Amino acid sequence: MTGTTRPSGRAFNELRTVSFERRYIKNVPGSVLVSYGNTRLVCTATVEDRVPQFRRGCGGWLTAEYGMLPGSTQKRSDREAVRGRQKGRTMEIQRLIGRSLRACLDFAALGERTITVDCDVIQADGGTRSAAISGGYVALRDALAALRPGKLKHDPVHGFIAAVSTGIYKNTPVVDLDYSEDCNAETDLNVVMNDAGHYIEIQGTAEGHAFRRDELDAMLQIARDAIGEIIAAQKDCLGL
Amino acid sequence: MTGTTRPSGRAFNELRTVSFERRYIKNVPGSVLVSYGNTRLVCTATVEDRVPQFRRGCGGWLTAEYGMLPGSTQKRSDREAVRGRQKGRTMEIQRLIGRSLRACLDFAALGERTITVDCDVIQADGGTRSAAISGGYVALRDALAALRPGKLKHDPVHGFIAAVSTGIYKNTPVVDLDYSEDCNAETDLNVVMNDAGHYIEIQGTAEGHAFRRDELDAMLQIARDAIGEIIAAQKDCLGL
Amino acid sequence: MTGTTRPSGRAFNELRTVSFERRYIKNVPGSVLVSYGNTRLVCTATVEDRVPQFRRGCGGWLTAEYGMLPGSTQKRSDREAVRGRQKGRTMEIQRLIGRSLRACLDFAALGERTITVDCDVIQADGGTRSAAISGGYVALRDALAALRPGKLKHDPVHGFIAAVSTGIYKNTPVVDLDYSEDCNAETDLNVVMNDAGHYIEIQGTAEGHAFRRDELDAMLQIARDAIGEIIAAQKDCLGL
Amino acid sequence: MTGTTRPSGRAFNELRTVSFERRYIKNVPGSVLVSYGNTRLVCTATVEDRVPQFRRGCGGWLTAEYGMLPGSTQKRSDREAVRGRQKGRTMEIQRLIGRSLRACLDFAALGERTITVDCDVIQADGGTRSAAISGGYVALRDALAALRPGKLKHDPVHGFIAAVSTGIYKNTPVVDLDYSEDCNAETDLNVVMNDAGHYIEIQGTAEGHAFRRDELDAMLQIARDAIGEIIAAQKDCLGL
Amino acid sequence: MTGTTRPSGRAFNELRTVSFERRYIKNVPGSVLVSYGNTRLVCTATVEDRVPQFRRGCGGWLTAEYGMLPGSTQKRSDREAVRGRQKGRTMEIQRLIGRSLRACLDFAALGERTITVDCDVIQADGGTRSAAISGGYVALRDALAALRPGKLKHDPVHGFIAAVSTGIYKNTPVVDLDYSEDCNAETDLNVVMNDAGHYIEIQGTAEGHAFRRDELDAMLQIARDAIGEIIAAQKDCLGL
Amino acid sequence: MTGTTRPSGRAFNELRTVSFERRYIKNVPGSVLVSYGNTRLVCTATVEDRVPQFRRGCGGWLTAEYGMLPGSTQKRSDREAVRGRQKGRTMEIQRLIGRSLRACLDFAALGERTITVDCDVIQADGGTRSAAISGGYVALRDALAALRPGKLKHDPVHGFIAAVSTGIYKNTPVVDLDYSEDCNAETDLNVVMNDAGHYIEIQGTAEGHAFRRDELDAMLQIARDAIGEIIAAQKDCLGL
Repeated sequence: MTGTTRPSGRAFNELRTVSFERRYIKNVPGSVLVSYGNTRLVCTATVEDRVPQFRRGCGGWLTAEYGMLPGSTQKRSDREAVRGRQKGRTMEIQRLIGRSLRACLDFAALGERTITVDCDVIQADGGTRSAAISGGYVALRDALAALRPGKLKHDPVHGFIAAVSTGIYKNTPVVDLDYSEDCNAETDLNVVMNDAGHYIEIQGTAEGHAFRRDELDAMLQIARDAIGEIIAAQKDCLGL
Repeated sequence: MTGTTRPSGRAFNELRTVSFERRYIKNVPGSVLVSYGNTRLVCTATVEDRVPQFRRGCGGWLTAEYGMLPGSTQKRSDREAVRGRQKGRTMEIQRLIGRSLRACLDFAALGERTITVDCDVIQADGGTRSAAISGGYVALRDALAALRPGKLKHDPVHGFIAAVSTGIYKNTPVVDLDYSEDCNAETDLNVVMNDAGHYIEIQGTAEGHAFRRDELDAMLQIARDAIGEIIAAQKDCLGL
Repeated sequence: MTGTTRPSGRAFNELRTVSFERRYIKNVPGSVLVSYGNTRLVCTATVEDRVPQFRRGCGGWLTAEYGMLPGSTQKRSDREAVRGRQKGRTMEIQRLIGRSLRACLDFAALGERTITVDCDVIQADGGTRSAAISGGYVALRDALAALRPGKLKHDPVHGFIAAVSTGIYKNTPVVDLDYSEDCNAETDLNVVMNDAGHYIEIQGTAEGHAFRRDELDAMLQIARDAIGEIIAAQKDCLGL
Repeated sequence: MTGTTRPSGRAFNELRTVSFERRYIKNVPGSVLVSYGNTRLVCTATVEDRVPQFRRGCGGWLTAEYGMLPGSTQKRSDREAVRGRQKGRTMEIQRLIGRSLRACLDFAALGERTITVDCDVIQADGGTRSAAISGGYVALRDALAALRPGKLKHDPVHGFIAAVSTGIYKNTPVVDLDYSEDCNAETDLNVVMNDAGHYIEIQGTAEGHAFRRDELDAMLQIARDAIGEIIAAQKDCLGL
Repeated sequence: MTGTTRPSGRAFNELRTVSFERRYIKNVPGSVLVSYGNTRLVCTATVEDRVPQFRRGCGGWLTAEYGMLPGSTQKRSDREAVRGRQKGRTMEIQRLIGRSLRACLDFAALGERTITVDCDVIQADGGTRSAAISGGYVALRDALAALRPGKLKHDPVHGFIAAVSTGIYKNTPVVDLDYSEDCNAETDLNVVMNDAGHYIEIQGTAEGHAFRRDELDAMLQIARDAIGEIIAAQKDCLGL
Repeated sequence: MTGTTRPSGRAFNELRTVSFERRYIKNVPGSVLVSYGNTRLVCTATVEDRVPQFRRGCGGWLTAEYGMLPGSTQKRSDREAVRGRQKGRTMEIQRLIGRSLRACLDFAALGERTITVDCDVIQADGGTRSAAISGGYVALRDALAALRPGKLKHDPVHGFIAAVSTGIYKNTPVVDLDYSEDCNAETDLNVVMNDAGHYIEIQGTAEGHAFRRDELDAMLQIARDAIGEIIAAQKDCLGL
């Protein structure tokens, strides 16, 4: 499981440099510039004092939106606002981000408020959905901290949430695939976990051929270790 | 893992009645009415002699679309054609169906043709995406069989594909959740496999609390057994 | 007027087998699978306890929506939800269904409720709009019956409504055209009537050449007889 | 059938003043300002040297579009371009106009050209769809006349086409209903005919109660006479 | 600055015939057919007794919409309602009209009402946005006059607003460009002013090469004179 | 003209810090992070080897698109991709950017290529459209430089283009308004110029009251000086 040569020279279980630049946008209560190597997103979290209709009387809510700047990709992507609709991939990703971040929220403690987490890709180099979840978590924490003095009795967040991609690249399970690996991976598995080491979401797709149980187990193992490192970086940046 | 009482009285690893009514629509080459208990969908497969632009010169393609009749659900669903766009859930599901069925296709053998698999829910009672994949597979086989005499040198399908949902219901892993279970499940895991027992796609979501590795393992186990049964039913209906 | 040879071998005034499979969908109060020969639709009727804004204070309302499964036609139809809008033909048909069924409703007796009748074509072989009206009527009756115990003082439905297509095929007026006749008809006349033998709606279109008054009279005559038979089938299925 | 008092004081079979102001717009080959009393529309006809895909190799085509200026109605109508889609009523009407005008065209003689007839309501007072058909016919003639020198061997138009509304108002069949009558009519029947006295299209709707055969016959009779007068006005304006 | 030969033979500072046909549409309180030579628009103004959400509690509001009949231009324009969205040019123009007319309104005096000014081009020959503003002003005055008896304490309109286009055509500043000049102008400057000779809006665009300050000054000078003439015509038509 | 106190303490003719961080995105040939104080945008320029249909045979083209990240503003902005259309303000701005940058391009020298300039606001604090033009120019230069070796015979760019906003704030003309000034300005004038000191575009709007000629002259004067400084910064960053 160790002999492959990754284009970047990284070890099979080695993350790219993961960093969080907190308070990146001054206009909103929670914001971060998250980087997984050359993948770079702005995540912001904003709060409104109302909830969508289907949540009335059930406490708060969190929703996520995702986008890519047209110039963030190797080949310019169409601007979805011009096309007039979001692509299926975009919807799939923003639904994943929303589900993942809702998993750490106590909606009763939040009260009738809606948090919107926006994740916009500035530069894409693989793993944008994972970076969005890990960065969105940091923005969410800051937005709630801005709210807490007076408005919230106790912290509605329980635990930490982070995500990483894994895959089978040249028959070897590897972590945090960059774009050149991602294009050629035989399998792609995104894993979202909390700091207790439990799963929030797993999504695995056979790109080339169907994957075996032992391959799945290996990917789950390296994901767990990597997520531990990412959560450490989140804690560090949040001073926790 | 055996003591729970499911609303339907089924054992934790017991499927609902799974059936395939082949050649359900006379106008198209491949069609089936698939039922997983009260969940019922029409799946059709049609073939066009051209491919989308991004596939030119790369062999064939398969795309899937999914919809629900407005009256298929407990509370009438809005008609997406009236709303003017498909919901995120719809897009997510049809992308899953497409990826899953593409995994059994040899695009070179298919030639420059596009197969469209349409899966429309007539009656919803949980597990529609799994039933769509298993039923879509049958429709796909028939559409290709209609094509083969003369047009294809060898069969572009390799292996069988089927899917099932699993979940944690009242702390117990169960298979093929119906709507009443699905609403109350703590975790939801959809599994798509082939007849070699390998994974095509896995998608697990913590609905209530994060799930543990042993819970994941248990769900994967009962999924594998159930998919074996569904593939047997597919073979039976196809006379293979 | 009798000597033509219809592709199906039917007499000029002979309907295809018309059948209504009541309570076809378990999730909604009124549903039916209606067949006019190979033309097959699911019709459902659902009730909401509110009316659109323009009806506030004027009693109830009924609205109809129509769709075709992509695989219901000889050549796959585009999915309107993907296109992002309903076609003109669809709008025209659903407006006709709504007007026709509203003609038998006492909105004051209904109270501030909206009934939505959804008609979805599973298999198309000519005459889908007529079958939708006749089937929608049955679903409507069942939805109101489900409502009546306690909620309605008296039945808001007066009379029966059914519809049939007629046309001039090879110079002969014929009833209930199937797809092969419809494509080649010189004139197309859809007739909606009640059980008193009066007209709810007539829509006649010259496809090939303008039609004469005597042709119109002949088509109206065979429509009247056929609608009598369809209403008999409705009564039979409803046990009335 | 004669004793009713129409709000306008007109006899039951009396048209409003029908007029055609030819060549109303200098930028296009065919244009007319058509008035049926206070109902006023601009109709234009333009020609393109290509046909829609489904018509390739089958000769020419004609398509019609209809719109209402927001300020043309008593209560301002929403601008459909702002709403982002045409209403069902608009689609229904423009489809009717297109079918009606296609009925007088020899597509082989037209050649691979598409004629677009645009009918825009400047002021609405009932009967806009009928006026659109009668006016659209005049614009069409002029657009073809502009084309003929050199481009067409013989005239692709055969016969004249005109339309009028009839209805049952206070139990009496009347012709060419204005808005105040239209709102209160029990039945509404639009009739499109050619100068041979044959039918192109009839559309009758029971607004209040179902209508009887003798009522239908009476409406058809007054429609025929009125259309004769409108065709005379068309001929006069075209100098034919 | 005087030696150029304009296609129309007009002097560099000579307007086309500007005319206002007041009360052009009987259904609405304010309407006008405005002409700047062959450019012809219907402008209507209607009033609603409510304001958009963002204006609640801030007095009244005015909004403008702009459209072109498909047959108003040399080459037929696509109908925006069919395309499903307004073009950027349309949005730009209707925003300009709205800003310009809001500049003469006292929103407190208007009260919680919204005025909608619709400007629809019947025939286009250059300068439609300027004509829309000048014509919209007249319709606005009439709509408010219809409102005033009883509903408004004092007139919410202060001053007159009119607009004209200027440009550099063959190196010479000219006023009120028609289509043939507009296509070939090197610079295009639209000017909106009030009767005090102050600016409401100026929009200048270099079409061919960048324009110099002295050219700008010359265009501003001829715009001022022309607007004086247009305001005189407005006063005349309004009997003020 | 000098006594006012700007919230930022700047002199009436003092720009905020203007900076260009070149090659900000590694995936595209031209990119820059442009800042006018706290206003920050990513501008990218990409090149395609084809032109839109209306430009065939006329050399190259340049088009611009503009967007704001939802979290870039004080109050979160709706994501236009979710709304399904771009707002009028967005369209107006991107049309302005496109016209401005096209003014420095020799389309014949560019050849049949389309350049797309995307300007996305990361943080908004007034003046985003001006910053977009100045930044877009830098990205454009780099995209063309990447193209030149081999593909272009000579540089299609002539001159420099930059933009700045001016306004009347508390009766004083000021330059480069930040958000707090912009909200309270009586007049707003955006000026786009080239390095020859000529005008590409001017857009002035009276927000509070109509503006006088002497106010316009004063704003044009300070815009000219400021644009000189911005062009100096562009040259510096481009090493020219």
